[in-house]
Amino acid sequence: GAYDGTAGVAAAVALAAWFVERGQPPQADLIVTVTRAEESVWFPVSYAGSRMALGRLHPEELEARRRDTGRTLAEHMREQGFDPDAIRGLTPLRKGRFVEVHIEQGPVLSAAGDTFALVTGIRGGLRYRTAQIHGAWAHSGAAPRAARADSVFAFADLVTALDSDWAETLARGEDLAVTFGIVDAASPVHAMAKVPGELGFCLDLRSDDKAILERTDAKLAIRIAGIEAQRPGIQFALGPQSHSMPVQLSAVLLEGLRQAALALYRPLPEMLSGGGHDAAAFAAAGWDAAMLFVRNEHGSHNPDEAMHPQDLAEAVAVLAHWLDHKQDGN
Amino acid sequence: GAYDGTAGVAAAVALAAWFVERGQPPQADLIVTVTRAEESVWFPVSYAGSRMALGRLHPEELEARRRDTGRTLAEHMREQGFDPDAIRGLTPLRKGRFVEVHIEQGPVLSAAGDTFALVTGIRGGLRYRTAQIHGAWAHSGAAPRAARADSVFAFADLVTALDSDWAETLARGEDLAVTFGIVDAASPVHAMAKVPGELGFCLDLRSDDKAILERTDAKLAIRIAGIEAQRPGIQFALGPQSHSMPVQLSAVLLEGLRQAALALYRPLPEMLSGGGHDAAAFAAAGWDAAMLFVRNEHGSHNPDEAMHPQDLAEAVAVLAHWLDHKQDGN
Repeated sequence: GAYDGTAGVAAAVALAAWFVERGQPPQADLIVTVTRAEESVWFPVSYAGSRMALGRLHPEELEARRRDTGRTLAEHMREQGFDPDAIRGLTPLRKGRFVEVHIEQGPVLSAAGDTFALVTGIRGGLRYRTAQIHGAWAHSGAAPRAARADSVFAFADLVTALDSDWAETLARGEDLAVTFGIVDAASPVHAMAKVPGELGFCLDLRSDDKAILERTDAKLAIRIAGIEAQRPGIQFALGPQSHSMPVQLSAVLLEGLRQAALALYRPLPEMLSGGGHDAAAFAAAGWDAAMLFVRNEHGSHNPDEAMHPQDLAEAVAVLAHWLDHKQDGN
Repeated sequence: GAYDGTAGVAAAVALAAWFVERGQPPQADLIVTVTRAEESVWFPVSYAGSRMALGRLHPEELEARRRDTGRTLAEHMREQGFDPDAIRGLTPLRKGRFVEVHIEQGPVLSAAGDTFALVTGIRGGLRYRTAQIHGAWAHSGAAPRAARADSVFAFADLVTALDSDWAETLARGEDLAVTFGIVDAASPVHAMAKVPGELGFCLDLRSDDKAILERTDAKLAIRIAGIEAQRPGIQFALGPQSHSMPVQLSAVLLEGLRQAALALYRPLPEMLSGGGHDAAAFAAAGWDAAMLFVRNEHGSHNPDEAMHPQDLAEAVAVLAHWLDHKQDGN
């Protein structure tokens, strides 16, 4: 999308430009930070850029393999002109405060008629990126129902079971999101008239509570054991798990931004971020971190992302007001 | 597989060779027929070769498009050195009797310890080769459950619903097989962290009874309407349907083969063919048609097909005995 990430960079530059144009600096140092590789589309490594800067990337994560090329993060960095070894010995950034402006990635603000919001926390994720269901290939007309080990039917069992577990979790007032982003029973070995013996899938679980992620993961194992028992010949192989921890953002920063918005405009709505963001990496490193979400009408991670520049300008004005009126001087 | 089709050709040649070596012809003319394109993997046209020979291929079927190249059957025939126009004016074969020997495509004979069997009928099929589920793309963390139109969850609803309809149909003693051979939510537009907005699938329904296929198709439409009602934003598009009719094989031929087997060896087991075969095209054209299945230990349409030559020889001996002892002289 055109705004995911870029809007935040534009906001930080606009904020700095505002103080430059006024000719009078804010009460605290303002550093515009641009990080790369927040998204972990290709490598099973979350927040790679910010965690490198924070000195929190484990050396073995540089050896993580890109899902299409099979080559490591370090190899790809070298190819792009970067030096992964320099990162190994990097002195971590000195702790400070981190504020991130980002388009909302869902429809919540637009639907409520709000222009921007305070983000109070960032969901953590628990992911299986290369899960497989192994069954038995068979002729679609000739294999009797009882003799089949059909990976698509086993997959459907899993999805409907997790769908119902998900609904129950929400009904208890707990936070959870369940997504199967990729489902692959479409390789050249599959055919219309074959009982599918293999299916690959990705599973992405998210919650603001680590305990809920762990409980859902335990429930997943029970569901899988149940399906394997009911469908002889079916075997799940979830593969490696990757995860990121849920984080609460800084109560102190949030209060400052809350007051600034109230002074300039109105009370701000508050919400959770379902998507992961670099602010989570800063918070996990012990920084005070905060986020503002700007509404976006068509979801994110797609070509239809939409943002009104006026909404972003309002969010930047709140940051400027907060920096001008900070009481603690940090 | 190495035996699917080829075993039948070998059986026919062996049968002819047996009479040649003996120096005394059978009571009826014996013609070895080799047909192409029984399988309809690439084109939505069943039994293309035999139906051409029988003068029963509709001219518009020559315009059917191959699923990968998008070019027509006629174009591909020309490229291979054949003349599709010659087929348009072809005089159909004079009616006769057709016997097909084929490996079994499932595990039934092997499991029962039988070496070969009489086939009493051939299942018909009803297929949607290019079905689609349209939903809404969204961010896996940011789109709340109630706001999602997730094509994978909608697909799982359909599979579990048909699974239960299938079990009920079998419990009534009726014949049905349900297969989703290809399931595609794995194109480059899909990603681990996206709620999938599109899913493609193939559905293959088979039964020995046209009424059951039609009833299952009607039930499918009701299931889809229910899922669409329960998941706003989800829309199924099944696309064109292709089908083949179930056929009963010739009672007269079956009785002749039954008697020959009894005289030579033992009573033959009898079974339905789940896979389609050219014998169905001959039967549909009004020929007396029959089939023998030879056991095969590892299913068909895969590299592990296995056949004992001795089993095929036994089946050929039954055919030879039948041709030598036919009473009606036809």
